[in-house]
Amino acid sequence: MAKLNEEDKQSAGFWVTQEAPIHSDNPIPTATSPAPDILRCAYMELIVTDLAASREFYVDVLGLYVTTEDDEAIYLRSTEEFIHHNLVLRKGPVAAVAAFSYRVRTPEDLDRAVTFYEELGCEVRRNPDGFVTGIGDSVRVVDPLGFPYEFFYQTEHTERMSWRYDLHIPGELVRLDHFNQITPDVPRAVGFMQNLGFRVTEDIQDNEGTVYAAWMRRKPTVHDTAMTGGDGPRMHHVCFATHEKHNILAICDKLGSLRRSDAIERGPGRHGVSNAFYLYLRDPDGHRVEVYTQDYYTGDPDNPVVTWDVHDNQRRDWWGNPVVPSWYTDGSLVLDLDGNPQPVVARTDDSEMAVTIGADGFSYTREGDEEKGFKLGNTL
Amino acid sequence: MAKLNEEDKQSAGFWVTQEAPIHSDNPIPTATSPAPDILRCAYMELIVTDLAASREFYVDVLGLYVTTEDDEAIYLRSTEEFIHHNLVLRKGPVAAVAAFSYRVRTPEDLDRAVTFYEELGCEVRRNPDGFVTGIGDSVRVVDPLGFPYEFFYQTEHTERMSWRYDLHIPGELVRLDHFNQITPDVPRAVGFMQNLGFRVTEDIQDNEGTVYAAWMRRKPTVHDTAMTGGDGPRMHHVCFATHEKHNILAICDKLGSLRRSDAIERGPGRHGVSNAFYLYLRDPDGHRVEVYTQDYYTGDPDNPVVTWDVHDNQRRDWWGNPVVPSWYTDGSLVLDLDGNPQPVVARTDDSEMAVTIGADGFSYTREGDEEKGFKLGNTL
Amino acid sequence: MAKLNEEDKQSAGFWVTQEAPIHSDNPIPTATSPAPDILRCAYMELIVTDLAASREFYVDVLGLYVTTEDDEAIYLRSTEEFIHHNLVLRKGPVAAVAAFSYRVRTPEDLDRAVTFYEELGCEVRRNPDGFVTGIGDSVRVVDPLGFPYEFFYQTEHTERMSWRYDLHIPGELVRLDHFNQITPDVPRAVGFMQNLGFRVTEDIQDNEGTVYAAWMRRKPTVHDTAMTGGDGPRMHHVCFATHEKHNILAICDKLGSLRRSDAIERGPGRHGVSNAFYLYLRDPDGHRVEVYTQDYYTGDPDNPVVTWDVHDNQRRDWWGNPVVPSWYTDGSLVLDLDGNPQPVVARTDDSEMAVTIGADGFSYTREGDEEKGFKLGNTL
Amino acid sequence: MAKLNEEDKQSAGFWVTQEAPIHSDNPIPTATSPAPDILRCAYMELIVTDLAASREFYVDVLGLYVTTEDDEAIYLRSTEEFIHHNLVLRKGPVAAVAAFSYRVRTPEDLDRAVTFYEELGCEVRRNPDGFVTGIGDSVRVVDPLGFPYEFFYQTEHTERMSWRYDLHIPGELVRLDHFNQITPDVPRAVGFMQNLGFRVTEDIQDNEGTVYAAWMRRKPTVHDTAMTGGDGPRMHHVCFATHEKHNILAICDKLGSLRRSDAIERGPGRHGVSNAFYLYLRDPDGHRVEVYTQDYYTGDPDNPVVTWDVHDNQRRDWWGNPVVPSWYTDGSLVLDLDGNPQPVVARTDDSEMAVTIGADGFSYTREGDEEKGFKLGNTL
Repeated sequence: MAKLNEEDKQSAGFWVTQEAPIHSDNPIPTATSPAPDILRCAYMELIVTDLAASREFYVDVLGLYVTTEDDEAIYLRSTEEFIHHNLVLRKGPVAAVAAFSYRVRTPEDLDRAVTFYEELGCEVRRNPDGFVTGIGDSVRVVDPLGFPYEFFYQTEHTERMSWRYDLHIPGELVRLDHFNQITPDVPRAVGFMQNLGFRVTEDIQDNEGTVYAAWMRRKPTVHDTAMTGGDGPRMHHVCFATHEKHNILAICDKLGSLRRSDAIERGPGRHGVSNAFYLYLRDPDGHRVEVYTQDYYTGDPDNPVVTWDVHDNQRRDWWGNPVVPSWYTDGSLVLDLDGNPQPVVARTDDSEMAVTIGADGFSYTREGDEEKGFKLGNTL
Repeated sequence: MAKLNEEDKQSAGFWVTQEAPIHSDNPIPTATSPAPDILRCAYMELIVTDLAASREFYVDVLGLYVTTEDDEAIYLRSTEEFIHHNLVLRKGPVAAVAAFSYRVRTPEDLDRAVTFYEELGCEVRRNPDGFVTGIGDSVRVVDPLGFPYEFFYQTEHTERMSWRYDLHIPGELVRLDHFNQITPDVPRAVGFMQNLGFRVTEDIQDNEGTVYAAWMRRKPTVHDTAMTGGDGPRMHHVCFATHEKHNILAICDKLGSLRRSDAIERGPGRHGVSNAFYLYLRDPDGHRVEVYTQDYYTGDPDNPVVTWDVHDNQRRDWWGNPVVPSWYTDGSLVLDLDGNPQPVVARTDDSEMAVTIGADGFSYTREGDEEKGFKLGNTL
Repeated sequence: MAKLNEEDKQSAGFWVTQEAPIHSDNPIPTATSPAPDILRCAYMELIVTDLAASREFYVDVLGLYVTTEDDEAIYLRSTEEFIHHNLVLRKGPVAAVAAFSYRVRTPEDLDRAVTFYEELGCEVRRNPDGFVTGIGDSVRVVDPLGFPYEFFYQTEHTERMSWRYDLHIPGELVRLDHFNQITPDVPRAVGFMQNLGFRVTEDIQDNEGTVYAAWMRRKPTVHDTAMTGGDGPRMHHVCFATHEKHNILAICDKLGSLRRSDAIERGPGRHGVSNAFYLYLRDPDGHRVEVYTQDYYTGDPDNPVVTWDVHDNQRRDWWGNPVVPSWYTDGSLVLDLDGNPQPVVARTDDSEMAVTIGADGFSYTREGDEEKGFKLGNTL
Repeated sequence: MAKLNEEDKQSAGFWVTQEAPIHSDNPIPTATSPAPDILRCAYMELIVTDLAASREFYVDVLGLYVTTEDDEAIYLRSTEEFIHHNLVLRKGPVAAVAAFSYRVRTPEDLDRAVTFYEELGCEVRRNPDGFVTGIGDSVRVVDPLGFPYEFFYQTEHTERMSWRYDLHIPGELVRLDHFNQITPDVPRAVGFMQNLGFRVTEDIQDNEGTVYAAWMRRKPTVHDTAMTGGDGPRMHHVCFATHEKHNILAICDKLGSLRRSDAIERGPGRHGVSNAFYLYLRDPDGHRVEVYTQDYYTGDPDNPVVTWDVHDNQRRDWWGNPVVPSWYTDGSLVLDLDGNPQPVVARTDDSEMAVTIGADGFSYTREGDEEKGFKLGNTL
């Protein structure tokens, strides 16, 4: 792990440094025009093939609040949200992501977004009435990594349901926390996101310099989005936060009662990366949804960057529980601005799954362990 | 599932009946003398090969309270216990269980224990000074199933630590909850335990009448001990209860911090059987320890018996998360009254692991599912 | 505190002894016929003046499950109950308690109940069809203390909702835990209850030998009922248990959202007595309902009796938060077998409220403190 | 409530508007030079009269981590902090606050702080080596409200203990959340803080236009500091956050076990303002410490401002539990830059305590209630 020296190692088994460039041999050029000032990930527009089935999952099971809905789309928000929505479910022929949408600080940041992406040669569209209900003037682009990104400031306000405990359920989702994107070349993606104003908070590397994943933030949490190495562009997951860990367990319990436990893909568990307690679900179209709680504040400019060794078996699950293969391999298609799926490009760097699990992979629980972990050997 | 009729099926996917004889083709004869009146499982005497390593696990990691200790043995109790101990760790050459010890209602029940087991032809020893520190007049037997059982009434009282929150840790173990024993012939074992005064609360069966496991109680919880089908006699696990689910998660988090996550064998998860939240650990000798919370009251004589279909993927984990093979195959030896390991007899009935996981096994999430569950296929 | 010696004092500030007679100068005679074998407190029949308002409170707010209902009565149960109900709400002209109902071990225990109470000269009625829906052969008496007690064995079974997480709410009530009765002469009441087969687990006394309250159990928890000193016979409260502390907090949060926070009378807090986490509510008729979690196992015959000093400010709230006066003074009337309110007799012993709070009362946080506690002085 | 119209009222009982000027008749002049860019409240320097007693409270009871210490001062941090400390305990003759310290975004913001405060005529001192251990170049001022404020950027980094679950306690404090200041003229103070770059998130007003308190933030939580109306300048409290509500309850339980329950001044409870779960403690010098969890994200520029009616009994405790008088009246002195206590000026506006509790006060649980709340009447 070239960038990591023994003196940077922390007592819990990872390395801490200041944010350093993750070197890319194939960088996206740096725009000369300023990036828009992004506040936070705000909502995802998901294409679903069966609107009723999706409504049952997100509303009846997960308890998101319906701001408005019609035959074509459902607009949902989490408990403490005051903007119009955090999730749009839109009926369509192919399950995919239509937009990763971010809120910017001012209306003028939309002009900056247009200039910034046009300079990079991206397709850019602006709609002063918004692309979806409840959102005003918006810019949508296909970014240099192939993802459909949206930026907006104007939005209808809704009532925060935080004080409406009479409506809360045991598995209450209180906040949209982050997106996670799959991309073949993580260093290239990270470099671009840094130019867009994101800061790296954590990453996974190996001693040979391969970067397997990186977490990046605008708001002061561990991330607004992450880049996960794999065939892409695809969406890995969208994540909502709960207040407490038992809220996440309650979602599992409820899925069991509904005889839908097969919607639980991985977890619950404790992440090494982010230190959050987590659960991964799959919606009726296979879109992955994370539920997550209790990462940490990252808002200082010199926030230490945490780097994990890809062979550390506690990096993705602090308890060493196995990552199921589907979690590494499956992802959702993303659409271009005309609604057509973006082609998927294969990752050429080492795959995290290949280097860590299965016949040829290696993971340790304690650095220096020379054999495969007891648990991986028994479960995969 | 011969004994189960559609009208007994509950909405959550299992069957409920009154306690019925689990038929055995090879029953242990019924004693004519009365069984001792057992109050509850009280402590386990464990032989460990490295007393210091075991002390670190049970005291430093799990936080059990040391009542007393010397170079040969450590006497431990859980937070709310007022008898001398719930666990004895004794140094020995072979990791094994020296005694499953139960408290009886009166001193006179020891006489009954002697008569009861002698009538059955078992080896019986009585020590008016107790076999271990802190326990008085005691009877030890090798029962007809090959397990070393102890009965006692007299014990030194200790201080309940329930009000000593200044000493509690995040993963506080408050109570010894139950034992779990591995035996080749579950119906035979259940019949014997019913004669000893235990009542069945839950079991796992299939439509062909094979019984894979059964849970039995004296105190009004789901069990004081369970019989798990497998090569035996062996000990499957000893279980301590916590107050809340986060206490169990805290144990996992702590093991991660200590880089001992490989001590986590299975879970945390929610059981179908018992409805409790659970975690399975392995101590330094491989002895399995469960941590568990929130089963239910079973003390009424007509308490409904819950029967689970062995093919129901939610029976052992309500969330459908896989049971690791080691959980099915591994167990601790048990000793005879001279301290020699009891020979292990192979199970001849179907194995739960074989019928539910792997190439030939089958489990469903929803009754009527015709293909293997998504999750099992991906993870085992 | 005559019965308490310094050597019995525990590190947390109370005294522990074996169960000793609480002396009464005016005892109820001991029956020569055997007492019925009581399993547990099973349900309370409450007379309410506005059935719709009570339904809203117990069903819509507290989430109890309706087993059946009609225009005159609603039959409710908690999550893990399998008998027909734990609470009957019956419309009537005067808010009161019609029955404290206990389940007995066998049908024959009803014969014993008849003989036992008739020998004591009590009014006894037996109804082979039960006095309420869902309950069979039952005996109702006005006991020597003036309370309407019921005993039954036969009951319709219902589905345990423990596995129906899809129906659970954040403040889920899982179990009927206990009753609490107000009686003028606590030693007299305790003696009678001991004759009925109850065992004392905790009490509150002073150095002059006054007994202010005592907790007594049949099932192995801290109590099935308690005797609280005051003008009586009256009902102090009925208590339901939750699984975790956050469930209790969720009830408070929900009441706030419904702008019904004035239904919260006292708490939430941690009891000294019982070590449970608690909350006291008042229903629309003023009937007091406790919600409670995490007391301890008391099922051994030599279970240590915990005695608290009435002047210990942590005996009723471990955090020293004040007990509101209404909690000491208010209670529900109880009915005779014809439905008429029993006359209330004034307590002549010292009142706990008078000796501990207000101008003349005294409470300490640390034994030996010579001035009134900081907190009491500031808040009452 | 002049600024509040019926159409702005939310279903939970408060009003929501965009941030509007809180009018002051006696404003502090607006500086023409730019304010420093403040990141967050970072630490408080507390003068304590008995360093050992304070260490016991903050380290042994509350579990803060000692970064370094000597005979004169102890430097403490919370679990997830990476800067040198969040609290300095310094031995001194008079219990007081020596500094409310904020971290700024860049070293250059210190120059801005100097210019900004000098323009306002404040006393300003700069120490390139820092005023305390672990902090570099710093500016200290007495602000126009009389409070000693500090600004710094440079700091030694420490290890985040978030992953060190082996060291965590049940009442783990994970983050410094906010300060709270007492000032006689809230509108005047709010106006000044807005000029310093703070934004109002919530406030308490009445229909006559009196402002009783206001919460203001830089980081995107409900506050970095609040202004509470009262005799001032004084410090009302410093607040640390936990992850979950049970962590706060654990602190209460532990204080009970240590027979220090009189350190609990108010709570635990649920705030109306901020929606957080809270507890107020008093340290050995009487300095007030809040423990708090689960407020909400406020980082968007158009974050709705929540205004509470001073007569709403749920504004300060959502459950309607009474605010003890000491909470309104007591506060810590603050020091000038020479270490002398600042003189305290009496509030002339209405006092929140006077208008809401006691003989002349009025609070409602439901708007329109015409009598005093049941609970207040019974407890105060």
